[in-house]
Amino acid sequence: MSVFTPVPESVLADWLTHYAIGRLVELKGISAGVQNSNFFVTTTLGRYVLTLFEDTPRAELPYYLHLMAHLARHGLPVPAPIANRDNEYLGTLQDRPAVLVVRLSGDSIMSPGTTHCARIGAMLAGLHLAGQSYGRRQENPRGAAWRAATAQAVRSFLPAGEQALLDAEVAFQASVDTAALPAGAIHADLFRDNVLWDVDDTGDAHVGGVIDFYFAGYDALLFDVAVTVNDWCAAPDGTLDAARCAALLEAYHAERPFTDAERAAWPAMLRAAAFRFWMSRAADFHLPRPGEMVLVKNPDEYRDILRLRAAGVPPLP
Amino acid sequence: MSVFTPVPESVLADWLTHYAIGRLVELKGISAGVQNSNFFVTTTLGRYVLTLFEDTPRAELPYYLHLMAHLARHGLPVPAPIANRDNEYLGTLQDRPAVLVVRLSGDSIMSPGTTHCARIGAMLAGLHLAGQSYGRRQENPRGAAWRAATAQAVRSFLPAGEQALLDAEVAFQASVDTAALPAGAIHADLFRDNVLWDVDDTGDAHVGGVIDFYFAGYDALLFDVAVTVNDWCAAPDGTLDAARCAALLEAYHAERPFTDAERAAWPAMLRAAAFRFWMSRAADFHLPRPGEMVLVKNPDEYRDILRLRAAGVPPLP
Repeated sequence: MSVFTPVPESVLADWLTHYAIGRLVELKGISAGVQNSNFFVTTTLGRYVLTLFEDTPRAELPYYLHLMAHLARHGLPVPAPIANRDNEYLGTLQDRPAVLVVRLSGDSIMSPGTTHCARIGAMLAGLHLAGQSYGRRQENPRGAAWRAATAQAVRSFLPAGEQALLDAEVAFQASVDTAALPAGAIHADLFRDNVLWDVDDTGDAHVGGVIDFYFAGYDALLFDVAVTVNDWCAAPDGTLDAARCAALLEAYHAERPFTDAERAAWPAMLRAAAFRFWMSRAADFHLPRPGEMVLVKNPDEYRDILRLRAAGVPPLP
Repeated sequence: MSVFTPVPESVLADWLTHYAIGRLVELKGISAGVQNSNFFVTTTLGRYVLTLFEDTPRAELPYYLHLMAHLARHGLPVPAPIANRDNEYLGTLQDRPAVLVVRLSGDSIMSPGTTHCARIGAMLAGLHLAGQSYGRRQENPRGAAWRAATAQAVRSFLPAGEQALLDAEVAFQASVDTAALPAGAIHADLFRDNVLWDVDDTGDAHVGGVIDFYFAGYDALLFDVAVTVNDWCAAPDGTLDAARCAALLEAYHAERPFTDAERAAWPAMLRAAAFRFWMSRAADFHLPRPGEMVLVKNPDEYRDILRLRAAGVPPLP
């Protein structure tokens, strides 16, 4: 279930006069959001997505919106925020921070093959390369400090075996030095459901959109690669598929070659990325915030992926 | 015939390493350009259009590129220029100023109906409203001063009857005061072949792209409306179609209401807009510049349209 702040059509029609995108034709709620209220908005001049932010502090939003604008400006298929007639991206609607973005086309592919993984690897490298010239900086909101703090918060809710796994991982991650890793703006949540694919007449699928930048932040680029590989290249049992891993990593490497420091840190990064989603899901499960109605995902999936990655991973190219 | 500066694939592939849009997949020349060399560029990450400027002075290009970026940022379907990894839009390729822009989808519709004209009216108003916050200013390159100077340059090549028409129009336009007209960034060349339409499953056509901003400049917004009406609302004999005129103008008026000063100036603006294209085509025909190979359009079409507009036009809403 998603949180939805209702937006009456008359209220939106009035709000749209602050923009230069014509008049409201259709407003439709999107049920897929897990954090924000999202709507498809069709006007006389185009198709857009409206997001009302339910939880994210307003001060953190410009980082995300300007990052999306920066990446779109560099030619990448991300939802560019729309400026209003005062040249501002961020507005207020129904007492919430609100933004309109370009509506991208395509659908998610939940069973990707090696070709899809290669295209995602190249796209992720493109995002990282374009992000290098992004001037703002905001720490990864699910970075090392958050992971360590969340581990302490959820620890007591876990059975003894999971506490041992958690303690071992916290100790291991504390020993990892990431200072030598290339860093920059990362998406940090590039799961399969955050990518839209356009399928052409020949059945060939191209990335039509990379969406949901609201976990983005400044961190090691390799952490983003690890998050992506853990989702796109895993078999249903969580083990890594060698062919899909190779396809994604080779395509990334062709655009932005991995460094020796990254090769050394790769096993630790895959574990850190798995740990991040185990911890966030465990926190959503054991420590739900009052009034919040989010889709709680099973924490066990990423607990198991963490165990599997700790047992060994294929090397970087 | 278009001027084409050849671009070898290997040269382009190397140039693309300055961008974050992946690797070259396909390069294809576009035969439609009349001023610049244009190419479709497909990379591993997307589809773009490459333009090499053959004539336009480099110093004038930032006005056009930043205007396109500004309008795209405001949610309008114009070809957003792509920034390279140094955050610059304008590069150099084959010793010419060069830019990559987003490739928009759709095809031109050369026989528009009232629905198309209404959509163009609304889109033109959106462009004008968004353009109000554009910070750069560059005069309309085919503005009043250019028209008067060009009239003197081509006059002696014309038969006596056309000289009389030209003299009368120059005198009439010199008497028109445009100071009270709302002004801003205008496209100034919004002909049917500069609009791409996306047709949906139901056969409904939406504007997918407004292209070719390389005649844009600062001028009376009404001049842009007049250029657009003269092309979109004319029958094959040049007379204005009342239904299409009404559809375009009412849709524009709904977004940006016309002022009384604009209502008074409307007949003169339709004449000025017709005169502009008669003069540019007459200059292309009688004064071809050495080495230039442009598609010379028949000047007589807009000579006749000027005569028709001088005989009377329907009023603005």
